[in-house]
Amino acid sequence: MDAPLISQSPCFNQRWFHWKHPRLRANVDFEPLLPPPLPYINSSRRRLLSASGDRLPAIVRASRSCSCGRNRSAVVHMASESENGNCNAWAARDPSGVLSPYKFDRRAVQREDVSLKITHCGVCYADVKWTRNLHNDSKYPLVPGHEIAGVVTEVGPDVKGFKVGDHVGVGTYVNSCRDCENCNSSLENYCPKSVFTFNGIDTDGTVTKGGYSTHIVVHERYCFKIPDGYPLAKAAPLLCAGITVYTPMMRHNMNQPGKSLGVIGLGGLGHMAVKFGKAFGLKVTVFSTSESKRDEAINVLGADNFVISSNTQQMESLKNSLHFIVDTASGDHPFDPYLSLLKVGGVMAVVCFPSEIRINPASLNVGARTLSGSIVGGTKDIQEMVNFCAANKIYPEIEIIKIDYINEALQRLVNRDIKYRFVIDIENSF
Amino acid sequence: MDAPLISQSPCFNQRWFHWKHPRLRANVDFEPLLPPPLPYINSSRRRLLSASGDRLPAIVRASRSCSCGRNRSAVVHMASESENGNCNAWAARDPSGVLSPYKFDRRAVQREDVSLKITHCGVCYADVKWTRNLHNDSKYPLVPGHEIAGVVTEVGPDVKGFKVGDHVGVGTYVNSCRDCENCNSSLENYCPKSVFTFNGIDTDGTVTKGGYSTHIVVHERYCFKIPDGYPLAKAAPLLCAGITVYTPMMRHNMNQPGKSLGVIGLGGLGHMAVKFGKAFGLKVTVFSTSESKRDEAINVLGADNFVISSNTQQMESLKNSLHFIVDTASGDHPFDPYLSLLKVGGVMAVVCFPSEIRINPASLNVGARTLSGSIVGGTKDIQEMVNFCAANKIYPEIEIIKIDYINEALQRLVNRDIKYRFVIDIENSF
Repeated sequence: MDAPLISQSPCFNQRWFHWKHPRLRANVDFEPLLPPPLPYINSSRRRLLSASGDRLPAIVRASRSCSCGRNRSAVVHMASESENGNCNAWAARDPSGVLSPYKFDRRAVQREDVSLKITHCGVCYADVKWTRNLHNDSKYPLVPGHEIAGVVTEVGPDVKGFKVGDHVGVGTYVNSCRDCENCNSSLENYCPKSVFTFNGIDTDGTVTKGGYSTHIVVHERYCFKIPDGYPLAKAAPLLCAGITVYTPMMRHNMNQPGKSLGVIGLGGLGHMAVKFGKAFGLKVTVFSTSESKRDEAINVLGADNFVISSNTQQMESLKNSLHFIVDTASGDHPFDPYLSLLKVGGVMAVVCFPSEIRINPASLNVGARTLSGSIVGGTKDIQEMVNFCAANKIYPEIEIIKIDYINEALQRLVNRDIKYRFVIDIENSF
Repeated sequence: MDAPLISQSPCFNQRWFHWKHPRLRANVDFEPLLPPPLPYINSSRRRLLSASGDRLPAIVRASRSCSCGRNRSAVVHMASESENGNCNAWAARDPSGVLSPYKFDRRAVQREDVSLKITHCGVCYADVKWTRNLHNDSKYPLVPGHEIAGVVTEVGPDVKGFKVGDHVGVGTYVNSCRDCENCNSSLENYCPKSVFTFNGIDTDGTVTKGGYSTHIVVHERYCFKIPDGYPLAKAAPLLCAGITVYTPMMRHNMNQPGKSLGVIGLGGLGHMAVKFGKAFGLKVTVFSTSESKRDEAINVLGADNFVISSNTQQMESLKNSLHFIVDTASGDHPFDPYLSLLKVGGVMAVVCFPSEIRINPASLNVGARTLSGSIVGGTKDIQEMVNFCAANKIYPEIEIIKIDYINEALQRLVNRDIKYRFVIDIENSF
């Protein structure tokens, strides 16, 4: 981590923070700090330029320092000028989670590798978690992004499935042992040696770096063909959000028309569950904490029913009525009220990570109900899901951003201020 | 409830409590009170006789009243002398849970009814729960017992499946609506109008009374044929303990040889899960809190492996190794350590009722694991299970008692002092 260039504590009642520094060409204005919830929030809306006009990789961190909540300290860091490499990216440098430009080297293409120029990368809540070190295992500089879409630019001599020019995607993992019971069942996502696309330790000992970058090199097994005509921007979110809800739906036979599906939470994952549900011919009920989502759920996504989960009367009326619930809610929430909505033998699939699950055993026992976990999907399922989306014209709802908006985007994701997935236009950001 | 006949506070350092009362023919000796854990415990080992020599339906209740733990009060109640009816039974009269002789009327046989002379009744932990009002819904006088075996003595004119002399069983429910989605799928156990064998409200408004009684009348749908040669005493525990573990094993395809099964708890349910597991050709690991059960688990029940659940090293060595776990532990216990033992896609079936289930969502998600509830089974499954036991010579391990030992037996059940199921020899108790 580099030393701070500027450090000062202006009062919060100013409209703008106003900085001067000999290495900056001009004064740099910052918008007022947003109210927390997080200890560190980025407020930069401007690029920092050096005296010679080059963009500086600057990080603005801010933290509340006074009990009145209005005085804050602000710190500007500059990334090391020694950073270089064959790949441009944006990285978080510390648990503030603030991203800034970064360079590093990708490996050369090996015999079974595919190299792709990344055109788009989806923004997943996992990007917030690891850039901010919420799991206490973040390895900085950290380049997030595991919903990657792009175009093949080079293939190794032994690659069988891809050629230069192919549209492809890369998801949440880029390696696995390829020899265990799980890998042999195309459940690479559960291989104990599975390597996450970012912040993982690859077999060569390097820390993996994700899709907030201009290209990536992966073994072809972890690369998926995106059918011609499917927009790459829309393909990106399929690689995590899409497969995360598709896999448990298929596992529990929810591709049978006429069945009833509940979807808890209407974010990146939830809205894809609604779309899959409708494509499968299901009767879809969306559960949300916010009335504001009703119109979108019904009229844009095509849900059949919309229920405010705090409305006990509405909840009561659905008791014993659903075959399946997919729980995508990111925060802590009760489980018993939802379990009671399942028919006998019904399944509630948990694809979220609340801090804890607490249930009354009767919620499971009386009704032979099931709580089942799932994370993303195996390589076979991912390709099947992408093909299904292309064949059925299922497209995620996205908001395309440039990379220099990423810090605001991550904060908006935290604030749930997004319909339904940010996708970074990587191709036009660097 | 009747008024107390005797009330006194003898000191606990006496070997015997010694009572005198004008309505009793002689002094009545009671054994010293057992140490609690429960607020009320019965200590009577003797029948109370009236001055004319008739047996009196007496209830002895005792509660600790002094901090030294040695002084106690004891109260003898006498049941109403107006009790009469066509069925002899033992009933609990209040939340002390102490049972004493009782008489009541069973209904006359209807067109589709079967009447059976009860020869045996298993003792389930549910009998403790409801006699002691642990669910706050006990309706006294309460005649427990839902593992009933006996001989048909009368059939209604429209009965198709049974004839006088047949050996039959009755399980945990004696009625259901016979018209709902669950009943039509032979999942009568999950019918919302399912009527429990005791403490339930039957369709005629009467409170059902269970198998601690000399006969029972049920609709033939809730009656099961016990194949010739299968001992009725051993058949009784199949009707609850047996079906409770059989159903989830079958539902989750655990009748496939070579799979690995974990069994938590080695009581009435757990020991049957081990027996089914071996009959299905599974590799069975028993989890117990007590080393004392190792020898029986391995050498009597035939388990392949025995693990003390508090031994983290032994637990660690089993990680990701089991296809299925059936959790029969009656008390509160952690779930995460067991879930981690499941293979990817593995299932932990909960057939117990701890006060709460608390799990880390990662225990489910990372490994696509499932927690699934179950209670007993439908009528089709029950008959299939009984037939399977007869065909494969699977017999519960039982300790046969007479009805006048029931209060001690229930306390021993609470103390886990039983291998593995008490069965009341009803035929020779009245």
